[in-house]
Amino acid sequence: MQVIKFPERAEWTFILARPSMDTRSLEQTVSNILEGVKKDGDEAVMRYSLMFDKVSLESLEVPPQHVEEAHSAVSAELKAAIAVAKANIEKFHLSQMQPELKVETMPGVNCWRRSVGIQNVGLYIPGGTAPLFSTLLMLAVPARLAGCRQIVLCSPPDTMGRLHPAILYAASLTGVHRIFRVGGVQAIAAMAYGTGSIPRVNKIFGPGNQYVMCAKQLIQKEGIAIDLPAGPSELAVYADESANPAFVASDLLSQAEHGVDSQVLLVSCSEFLLDRVLEEVNRQLEGLPRKQISKRALENSKMILVKNPEEAMDLLNQYAGEHLILACSDAQAMSERVVNAGSVFIGHYSPESAGDYASGTNHTLPTSGYAASYSGVSADSFVKKITFQKLSQTGLAAIAETVQIMAEAEGLQAHANAVKIRMGNSTS
Amino acid sequence: MQVIKFPERAEWTFILARPSMDTRSLEQTVSNILEGVKKDGDEAVMRYSLMFDKVSLESLEVPPQHVEEAHSAVSAELKAAIAVAKANIEKFHLSQMQPELKVETMPGVNCWRRSVGIQNVGLYIPGGTAPLFSTLLMLAVPARLAGCRQIVLCSPPDTMGRLHPAILYAASLTGVHRIFRVGGVQAIAAMAYGTGSIPRVNKIFGPGNQYVMCAKQLIQKEGIAIDLPAGPSELAVYADESANPAFVASDLLSQAEHGVDSQVLLVSCSEFLLDRVLEEVNRQLEGLPRKQISKRALENSKMILVKNPEEAMDLLNQYAGEHLILACSDAQAMSERVVNAGSVFIGHYSPESAGDYASGTNHTLPTSGYAASYSGVSADSFVKKITFQKLSQTGLAAIAETVQIMAEAEGLQAHANAVKIRMGNSTS
Repeated sequence: MQVIKFPERAEWTFILARPSMDTRSLEQTVSNILEGVKKDGDEAVMRYSLMFDKVSLESLEVPPQHVEEAHSAVSAELKAAIAVAKANIEKFHLSQMQPELKVETMPGVNCWRRSVGIQNVGLYIPGGTAPLFSTLLMLAVPARLAGCRQIVLCSPPDTMGRLHPAILYAASLTGVHRIFRVGGVQAIAAMAYGTGSIPRVNKIFGPGNQYVMCAKQLIQKEGIAIDLPAGPSELAVYADESANPAFVASDLLSQAEHGVDSQVLLVSCSEFLLDRVLEEVNRQLEGLPRKQISKRALENSKMILVKNPEEAMDLLNQYAGEHLILACSDAQAMSERVVNAGSVFIGHYSPESAGDYASGTNHTLPTSGYAASYSGVSADSFVKKITFQKLSQTGLAAIAETVQIMAEAEGLQAHANAVKIRMGNSTS
Repeated sequence: MQVIKFPERAEWTFILARPSMDTRSLEQTVSNILEGVKKDGDEAVMRYSLMFDKVSLESLEVPPQHVEEAHSAVSAELKAAIAVAKANIEKFHLSQMQPELKVETMPGVNCWRRSVGIQNVGLYIPGGTAPLFSTLLMLAVPARLAGCRQIVLCSPPDTMGRLHPAILYAASLTGVHRIFRVGGVQAIAAMAYGTGSIPRVNKIFGPGNQYVMCAKQLIQKEGIAIDLPAGPSELAVYADESANPAFVASDLLSQAEHGVDSQVLLVSCSEFLLDRVLEEVNRQLEGLPRKQISKRALENSKMILVKNPEEAMDLLNQYAGEHLILACSDAQAMSERVVNAGSVFIGHYSPESAGDYASGTNHTLPTSGYAASYSGVSADSFVKKITFQKLSQTGLAAIAETVQIMAEAEGLQAHANAVKIRMGNSTS
C-alpha cells in the first residue's frame, strides 16, 4: 500500500482517482454478439456458449432435475446460513416499500403515487471461481417483495452445463421464476431482446466482467434499464486510535481479495495507527488463499494521513466510496456527516462482510465515485413509481385559472383549452 | 388520425411502436462539442454559443440585474399562477421525502437508510418558441426539498444574451443558486465537466432537442447521472361513452401541439365515441395557433377500437405511455389495473394540463415505453439513499456464523476472517 502523508486538497482529485476503465475498445466485439443474438436468438446464444463457455447445450433452461439435485447437494449448514441472511434482507428491504400516500394539494385535487413492480426483470450472476449466491439473494429477495411478475436468472454453466448447486438452491428458495444456464454478453443480449427460450425483460441487474458491463451499457441505450453503472469493488476506512489494527487490516483484506482491480483506502489522523495496520495487513495476508489477488489489489491501494477528522470526512465525501467503515470512537456522529457513500459501517463491530452477506442491507452498490449521484440497489430498484391524480369538477375549477395563465404564457393554447372547455367557457 | 379496428394481439407490438429515434448519426457531432468544452472550457462554450445561438457573450453567468428586471417584467397574474403551482408541487413532492427508518434485523444488528441530497445538480431548460418555466418548477422545487447544495441552471439566451423573464423569475423564486445563459450540447458539456465559470455537477436534468438528448446519453457513459432517457412526449386516452367527446378531443390536441413528433393514442370500445371525438378534433383544431404542428403530430396518432375494457387495459399496459387519461365511468377501478404508465389522470375532470402545470405531480416523465421500467422525476431523483449499519458485539456474534459459512462457500476467506478476528477466534 502507498502511504500518503498530509496531501494538499489540490492533490485529492488525483489521489482519489479510480483506475480508468475504458470499455470503448470492447464495444465492437460486444456489439457483434448483441447483434448476433438479436438476429439468430437461441441459435446464437448456443453458438456463443460453445465458443466462450466451452459448453454444448441442448436446452438453455436449467432442467428441473438440476434444481432438485441442488437441494440435496447444499449442506444443512449452508442452508441455515442462507435462511438467516434471507430473513434479514427481507426485513430490511420490506421497510423500504412505500405505501400509497394520497395528498390533497387543493380541495378536490387528489394526487398520489403507487409503486408497481417492474413486470419482467433479469438477474445476471457471474460464474468463475466464486459462486455468488449472496448476490442472487440481494437481487431476488427485493424483486419478489416488489411484486415483479417474472424474475429471470442467467448464469454461466460449467462445461457440463451445470450451475453451482448453491446458486440453484438460492434461486429456488427466493422464487426466481425461470433459470437459464447462459452467461456473458449472450445472456445480457438474450434478456434484452428475448429469444425463443429466454424472455425479454424490462430491467437487467447484476455484476459481471468488463464484457458484461459493456453489454449492459450498450443495451441501456436501447431502452432496457440497468441497475447501476459498474466498476471494481472498493472500500474506504476511517480509523482513529480507538480502532483495533487487526480488525482494520482484516477489513482491508476482505475487500482486496475481490479482484486485482479492487481498491482500498485507509484514512486516519494517526500515523501510529497506519503503521500498526500495515504490519497487520502483511501478517494476515500470508494466511490467505487468495493472497496473490489481494497483493495486487493492495498495490493500487492507499493509506492517507490527514490533519483532523474534519479533513478526513471531506476527503471521504469527495472519494464517494462504495463501502465506508467508520472505525472510530465517535463513529455515530461521524456517520451523520457522510454525504457520498454507498453503504456505511459504523463502529468496531460492523465489518463490511456483515453487510456483504447477512445484516440485511444490500451489497449491490455504486462504485467508482458513482455514490455521488446513484443509490445502491433497494426495493426502489424493482418498482416504477406511477403518479395518479383525480380532480373533481371543483378541484379543476380551483386550478383552472392557474393552468390557463401558465399555458398561455408558454404559448400552449391547446393546453389551456383542455381546461377551458371543461369549465364551459371554451373559446373554440 | 389513423383508425384501427379490433387489431389482433399479435399486431399490437407493431401498432404501438414509437417512431424510432436513432441518435447514432448525431454522435460524432455531439462528441466533438463535448470534447471541445472538456478541452477549452469557457472559451469553447462561448465559441459554440456564437456558432449555434448567434450570441456573443462577455460572461456566461446571467447578470444579477437581469434577474431583478425579470421580477418587474413578469405580470402579477403570472406570478400568482406560478405561486399556486409551486405550492402544490411542493406539497406533493414533500410527501415523497422518506424519513430514516431504523430496522433491527436481529438483536444488535441495526440497519437504516438515509436520503441525502445529491450535492450538485444541473437543470437544463431549452429555449425556442415556448419558455418552459413550468419545467423549471418541476425540477428546482424537488431539488430544493431534497437539500441539493448547489442547483445550477443552463438555458439558451436570445441573440441579445437574454433569458425569458419567466424563466429567470421562476429560477429566482425556487432558489436556483447559479444561472447560466448557455444552451445546447455546450451547456450539457459544461455541467458534466465543469469550466472556469460553470461548476461540474453530479446529475443533469431536463428536456432538450435531439442533440441535447444525445449529449446526455454520452455523458452518462462517463459517470454523470441523468434524469431519464428522453423521447417525444405522448398521451394515451381510454374513453367510454360516458366521456365528453369535446373534452377528449381537447386532451388529444393539448398533447399534439407539443411537437410534430408527439404521439397520441385514443382507445375505446365504442366506435360511436371514436367518431364523435374525431369530429371534435377536426373542429377544435381550426382555432389553434399551433395548428400546423398539431396536424403533423396527429398524422402519427391512432384511434384504436377494442373489444372490451380488459383488452383496452392490456393494450395500454403494453403501450406504457408517458401520460394516461382514463375518461370512463369506472376510472378509479381501471386505474388500479395500470402497471405501466408515467402519470395517470382519472375521470372526466383530470386533463393532462392539470398535471403539466399545477396539480402538484411532476411532468418530467418516461416516454417511448420507458414507463415499463423507469419512474418519472420525483424527490427520489434528487437524493442518494445511503444505507447504514451498526452492529454491537452481540449483534455481530448473532450473524458471525452465517457470514463465515457463506463467505467460505463463496471461496472468500478474508471476508470470513473479518468476522472471525472480531470474535476472537482468528485463524491467522
